[in-house]
Amino acid sequence: MSGYLFTPGPLTTTETVRQAMMEDWGSRDAAFIRLTRETREGIDAIAGAGATHTTVLMQGSGTFAVEAALATLVGPRDRLLVAINGEYGRRIEKIAARMGKAVEPLSFGDTEPVDPARLKAHLEANPEITQVAVVHLETTTGLLNPLPEIASVVAEAGRRLILDSMAAFGAYAIDLRTLPCAAVIASSNKGLHGTPGIGFVVAEKALLERCAGHSPSVSLDLHDQWRGFESNGQWRFTPPTHILAALHRAIAEHAADGGTEGRRALYGANAAKVTARMEALGIVPTLPAELRSSVILTFDSPDAPWFDFKSLYDRLAAQGFRIYPGKLTQTETFRIGCIGAIPPEGFDAMLDAFEAAIADMKAPKAAE
Amino acid sequence: MSGYLFTPGPLTTTETVRQAMMEDWGSRDAAFIRLTRETREGIDAIAGAGATHTTVLMQGSGTFAVEAALATLVGPRDRLLVAINGEYGRRIEKIAARMGKAVEPLSFGDTEPVDPARLKAHLEANPEITQVAVVHLETTTGLLNPLPEIASVVAEAGRRLILDSMAAFGAYAIDLRTLPCAAVIASSNKGLHGTPGIGFVVAEKALLERCAGHSPSVSLDLHDQWRGFESNGQWRFTPPTHILAALHRAIAEHAADGGTEGRRALYGANAAKVTARMEALGIVPTLPAELRSSVILTFDSPDAPWFDFKSLYDRLAAQGFRIYPGKLTQTETFRIGCIGAIPPEGFDAMLDAFEAAIADMKAPKAAE
Repeated sequence: MSGYLFTPGPLTTTETVRQAMMEDWGSRDAAFIRLTRETREGIDAIAGAGATHTTVLMQGSGTFAVEAALATLVGPRDRLLVAINGEYGRRIEKIAARMGKAVEPLSFGDTEPVDPARLKAHLEANPEITQVAVVHLETTTGLLNPLPEIASVVAEAGRRLILDSMAAFGAYAIDLRTLPCAAVIASSNKGLHGTPGIGFVVAEKALLERCAGHSPSVSLDLHDQWRGFESNGQWRFTPPTHILAALHRAIAEHAADGGTEGRRALYGANAAKVTARMEALGIVPTLPAELRSSVILTFDSPDAPWFDFKSLYDRLAAQGFRIYPGKLTQTETFRIGCIGAIPPEGFDAMLDAFEAAIADMKAPKAAE
Repeated sequence: MSGYLFTPGPLTTTETVRQAMMEDWGSRDAAFIRLTRETREGIDAIAGAGATHTTVLMQGSGTFAVEAALATLVGPRDRLLVAINGEYGRRIEKIAARMGKAVEPLSFGDTEPVDPARLKAHLEANPEITQVAVVHLETTTGLLNPLPEIASVVAEAGRRLILDSMAAFGAYAIDLRTLPCAAVIASSNKGLHGTPGIGFVVAEKALLERCAGHSPSVSLDLHDQWRGFESNGQWRFTPPTHILAALHRAIAEHAADGGTEGRRALYGANAAKVTARMEALGIVPTLPAELRSSVILTFDSPDAPWFDFKSLYDRLAAQGFRIYPGKLTQTETFRIGCIGAIPPEGFDAMLDAFEAAIADMKAPKAAE
């Protein structure tokens, strides 16, 4: 498979990140222990972990890291509120409920932001809630939730924030030295431009310390995984060595590309270009501009008999451009990811192909 | 890091398996769905899954697949007996106990095989046990348990067998058309010679069907993962796309290398060579010949003042040869893995370096 992925990740990586996977590593060797340590430190730096927080890597995917965070950080005397405005918020509630944690939802529409005022009122009315989980950037729509306001409300109410920043981390700034947040969760294959296979949690050390034995899962025990890294520098169970090497390289390239600010500028330029070309075709973004992120854009599918997403997808895929289906249940939509190591001319070529595909789908067929 | 890994996996892969990681895949694209299906079918074929069993891939590592199998296949009315003769058996008991499954151990010494007669007597005396878990090949020592006899005892007692075949799969034959076994668990990075990041369970379909809702973990729910693959061919959560592409390629190379028989012959020749050279140096295998596998060999460390494992390791590592520390608590041992894509001359070179390192360690130091 060649071409570019206009998806929310796994995404297009650089040749040099992929080349980093061309070596085999002994997972208990000193060289790999160093690679692990430097990767944790690199993520610490991006998150502003300072002295209070630390990065715990987890095998699997972002969802595995979310589950490890919930399993470990939500204790037997905690009650978790999940502010939900999309699939990933719903997934947090489902994961916590399945493992028997005390959890309740605070639901918003999928095209509405999480409302800090409603959250504040809910916390005031429900003093038994000790923790709040929220998705920073909902991949369902590309909606960016108002993180600073949410974090302030949670902190002022004396509760703890667990942030799923999967799609935002590395592109939208998080500084744990100033943002009151107990844990930030993300993965190797989004804004960091690594290959998929590792999730991570940047968690408050003082909290982690109190969480021994909370997790019903041995594999997804964030506390024990942290203790493993701290005791001998090793992963408790076989790590995806090649993926770690790629992530290590990707973090260096993230810095070289201007860090979080550089990445956000890149995605912003990509998203502006995509939006302008779609609007010129009469295709409308599902979200108002003030709710949109630059990571992934959702568009209403043209409500016309000639439009067929599968046909559009296949035409683009045949030219090496892979876009993404929609996930809203109420409206027919499709999505275009604006992230990954795609040069500007890659976006131009995809948008030209998109325009041609639309023209071709609209044209009356000879056989008809 | 270059050279060869004389470890139990992650191991040395072929250049062509690593090259398979040089493409980015859209995880919901038709091409990747085909890659996933063909990988499942390839593992089915190696296990003799026939019509009764099916392969369910799991992100993470082998341990994650073990946990998914226990979480899902051990139901609320089951009681699991774990026959234990090493670290990996103890890990099974720990995982099952942590998630609240009814579990009990049947312990043997770490240098003793699981005894089918004792297992039979234990099952007769404990009719409430419904399932038995055992490790096929204990990486702790390299000990190969008597699988056909164990499987017969479990089947004749009307119980169900869950087999952790992590270190054996792909090198020691398993044929589920004749072996009575509910589930076989292994991973990408052992006998199949893939890169690490994927575990899998070849499970009985009729059992999987009855296991909805058993798992306290959403991520590690083998039933839901299976339903996902069967419904649309996709992974429920982000898969390690590059690792799957490598595993897909590794399975093709496994077949080209003569399949399970070819791999066992290769490992057998490696193990014979290593054992002969060690014995010539007066270094003795920890296990008697009849208990040893060819996957990994454990040797008693020379009980002499000149011997120091770390010094030996570093000397070999400096030349690109990475051996493995021991894991027995009673005896000082070290291990040498005989698996992976290492040519015969790679073993010769490591053994020459080993001999030189021993000679050097033994030699009286000028400074002393």
